[in-house]
Amino acid sequence: MQIGVVAPGRPIDEKVAAATSAFAALAFPTVDLSFHPQCFMEDGHFAGPDDVRAQAFLEYANDPQYDAIWFARGGYGSNRILDAVIPELGTIAANKMYVGYSDMGFLLGALYARRIGHPVHAPMPIEIGRKDNGVCIGRPLEWMVARDPRALEPGLDGRPSVAFNLSILTTMIGTPWLPDLTDHVLIIEDVSEPLYRIDRMLFEMANATQLKGVAGVRLGEIVDIQENDPPWGETPEAMIERWCADMGVPYLGRARVGHSADNHVVPFGVVAA
Amino acid sequence: MQIGVVAPGRPIDEKVAAATSAFAALAFPTVDLSFHPQCFMEDGHFAGPDDVRAQAFLEYANDPQYDAIWFARGGYGSNRILDAVIPELGTIAANKMYVGYSDMGFLLGALYARRIGHPVHAPMPIEIGRKDNGVCIGRPLEWMVARDPRALEPGLDGRPSVAFNLSILTTMIGTPWLPDLTDHVLIIEDVSEPLYRIDRMLFEMANATQLKGVAGVRLGEIVDIQENDPPWGETPEAMIERWCADMGVPYLGRARVGHSADNHVVPFGVVAA
Repeated sequence: MQIGVVAPGRPIDEKVAAATSAFAALAFPTVDLSFHPQCFMEDGHFAGPDDVRAQAFLEYANDPQYDAIWFARGGYGSNRILDAVIPELGTIAANKMYVGYSDMGFLLGALYARRIGHPVHAPMPIEIGRKDNGVCIGRPLEWMVARDPRALEPGLDGRPSVAFNLSILTTMIGTPWLPDLTDHVLIIEDVSEPLYRIDRMLFEMANATQLKGVAGVRLGEIVDIQENDPPWGETPEAMIERWCADMGVPYLGRARVGHSADNHVVPFGVVAA
Repeated sequence: MQIGVVAPGRPIDEKVAAATSAFAALAFPTVDLSFHPQCFMEDGHFAGPDDVRAQAFLEYANDPQYDAIWFARGGYGSNRILDAVIPELGTIAANKMYVGYSDMGFLLGALYARRIGHPVHAPMPIEIGRKDNGVCIGRPLEWMVARDPRALEPGLDGRPSVAFNLSILTTMIGTPWLPDLTDHVLIIEDVSEPLYRIDRMLFEMANATQLKGVAGVRLGEIVDIQENDPPWGETPEAMIERWCADMGVPYLGRARVGHSADNHVVPFGVVAA
């Protein structure tokens, strides 16, 4: 299986590619990982200018040689190529998995909105750095290579599901990039925010006209919470229960999804049994 | 003129009220400032629980004794009382000015969306702390008391205008709280964000279906910019020009609005000549 790696947001170091390839060669010998040279480019905040990142993504997505596209890492930027890439994806691109999370949620969401390919919320190559013997980045590989159900988030229940970083989800709200999530279980997670900002984003989620039809919300991890002055005094779970009540949708419990080594795979939509 | 002060977000100290009242007594002798005791309450992050803040606002807004409502300060929280207060505002409330900015943009926006009263983007009592002899907080008083045009943002040009903190504007996008801004000049400002987040919010603004009809965008101050690693390498003005081009609306230049002593008054809508 050939997996093409591109970086629509920020760059990775060549060492990350080497370590991920070495791990994959041992643990997934049928996998051939190809890191696009664009992954290592640096242009200020980004892994190359917008047009270069867009072209790298289109090159791999539209190439029949690659069975799946794996995003190298998150970090702000994938939203800036949506206009350039989404209309240029052809029939080859329409049959692939697109795998990543965090900022890459912009692409996963836009692809899902247009019914292009199979977006998958899952760990990314940069997480080889977790020093967990590849347990974390092994999950997307298990899913891409063998649809191994052990890689899946254990609470997926047959209903269509999606997972998003809350900051990315709320940025898409009110734009044509947000997919129709009617009847979907919505899993959210976030990282490095103070709780007042989490609350403000949950307000937008709970009040969003486009999200009125979701089946329910599950809470992934909220990690590296930044200081709130004064202390917020409420857990993320209490917050989401409160906002789900406001939203009029059920809170469906925790999910093993987020910016941690426990991040599990959530294929967008219904997972075939 | 009687002005009622409430704090829908975070609290102020009684010293702020005393100093603001002393300044107003000297500079605006016809003004009677009444600080609701709720302004000084503390409940974790907020100036009292949601229901207490909502009741204080409703009490003053619906009381014919007060000619205008002045918000004591910003700080997260006014969004949490919208559901409770907006439907309860009566005919008395519909004739008042509502004056503030930053987080108070949630209330200004919701009031403007429902055509209730006269929302005004302007400095707040807590800014007595600027030690500028009241120049900053004098502007909203000049406007409330005498409609003094010298208090106005100098670029208002007869077209309907609004001003918002970008973080608050983007949080309202996609919700029923965002007013219809068709044909409006939209002024934005922000504080204490790294530039990648400003860019991400400008993406949401530029892609928002609800904002497709704005007449143009003006850039207020972007202050206390947080470090971007690596450096962003682009000025806020270059950013907004780029996103306005994406949005297909004219960039109309800078505006003297923002989290600084130069913050001028922007009455929502058209300012009567």
